[in-house]
Amino acid sequence: MNLIIDIGNSAVKSAVFQDAKILRSYVFPFENFSENFQKIKKDYPQIAFSMLSSVIKDTFEIEKILKRETKLFVLGENTRLPFKNNYASPQTLGKDRLALVAAGSLKYQNINLLIIDAGTCITFDFKNDKNEYLGGAISPGLQMRLKALHNFTAKLPLVKLEENITLIGDSTKNSILSGVLNGVAAELDGIIDRYKADYKYLTIILTGGDSQILSKRVKNGIFANPNFLLEGLNYILEFNKTQ
Amino acid sequence: MNLIIDIGNSAVKSAVFQDAKILRSYVFPFENFSENFQKIKKDYPQIAFSMLSSVIKDTFEIEKILKRETKLFVLGENTRLPFKNNYASPQTLGKDRLALVAAGSLKYQNINLLIIDAGTCITFDFKNDKNEYLGGAISPGLQMRLKALHNFTAKLPLVKLEENITLIGDSTKNSILSGVLNGVAAELDGIIDRYKADYKYLTIILTGGDSQILSKRVKNGIFANPNFLLEGLNYILEFNKTQ
Repeated sequence: MNLIIDIGNSAVKSAVFQDAKILRSYVFPFENFSENFQKIKKDYPQIAFSMLSSVIKDTFEIEKILKRETKLFVLGENTRLPFKNNYASPQTLGKDRLALVAAGSLKYQNINLLIIDAGTCITFDFKNDKNEYLGGAISPGLQMRLKALHNFTAKLPLVKLEENITLIGDSTKNSILSGVLNGVAAELDGIIDRYKADYKYLTIILTGGDSQILSKRVKNGIFANPNFLLEGLNYILEFNKTQ
Repeated sequence: MNLIIDIGNSAVKSAVFQDAKILRSYVFPFENFSENFQKIKKDYPQIAFSMLSSVIKDTFEIEKILKRETKLFVLGENTRLPFKNNYASPQTLGKDRLALVAAGSLKYQNINLLIIDAGTCITFDFKNDKNEYLGGAISPGLQMRLKALHNFTAKLPLVKLEENITLIGDSTKNSILSGVLNGVAAELDGIIDRYKADYKYLTIILTGGDSQILSKRVKNGIFANPNFLLEGLNYILEFNKTQ
């Protein structure tokens, strides 16, 4: 039984896997790691392996806990990966993006694949049908855009995300909601179209916390899977266990 | 001779107009208003009228200076405007957007007009062919996106805007540049297409500090005019002088 831990910019996402199946998933604040880990371990004492991926710097305490109680794999430069990394600066490639591409390479071998992860940031990652990772893009996520409009201007309010929006916002709130939600949907459609122009056969995966709200608004055919990253980390763990 | 002053979220933009023509334009920090005003007044002592539009709250000192030396018009709720405002909350409509729509209503009467102002924020404002303003959208601008990616994540660097970018960024810097610049271009194209689907005959104006860098990347036919807002304020001033 595996415990998968993905430390992102806004929270810790975690899941317990039996083989390739998620038994339960968790989201909790970074600060409460120890407490949450104990609860998970109590629910699933059979957890023997763990895999950690983090986009933040200091995970020393977390690694200490995981090492004591499980056989820990940390996603890093020494992890065996199932794709060729053509990124010019592999040392600055975010661990979250590495995990997504690894998942994509295992699940979609020999297929041109664009993975869009809509979370704190929206990341675009492309691997071609030779399982070579070429890179992609990073753009602000929905919540980050709402926060930026408030924090970096003098008068705009902090608006909470809502589903029912119009193209033409008739108030400041509705203008912001249209700009952020219609804006991101238009951006995704436009970027996907540009990839499609370059790669005729293209599979697109949309994942991350905002994948549900966005998948409804994107015209292009996409597969929405909110757990793609956690599943990817589990694949990598299995791939490395056997070494 | 008119002095037009537009106080935005990041700087003061100002221009001296003789009739409808800009003689000189200026950009300076908010804090240095008094000093810059004296220089402008020295260069153009014939300035008799001024018009102020501001998206920030406290412009009391600036108004005092302008009132002492010119006949001042402040863009506000009592300003006579050449369009019907159907915005549900006119009191929260940003003064910059009001000025853009006023300019559009005077220059493009009886034409469906979408005005996109790409500055600190990207604002979309739509007025129909009956000169009715319906509203629009507010989305983060290029610099705001770069800043947000750095400020609101643990590891992403603050990237400076560059013109030569690729679709697939092969480093963190190039990923961010692609996400921000290709992202905004795709967003503009997609949003314009949605307006075009609803309004067959549509004129699109692109203005603001980032209009040049964006106009090259947007597929849709647009008119780029970086001074549209200042010209609009000058129109409004002339429109109100004669009352």
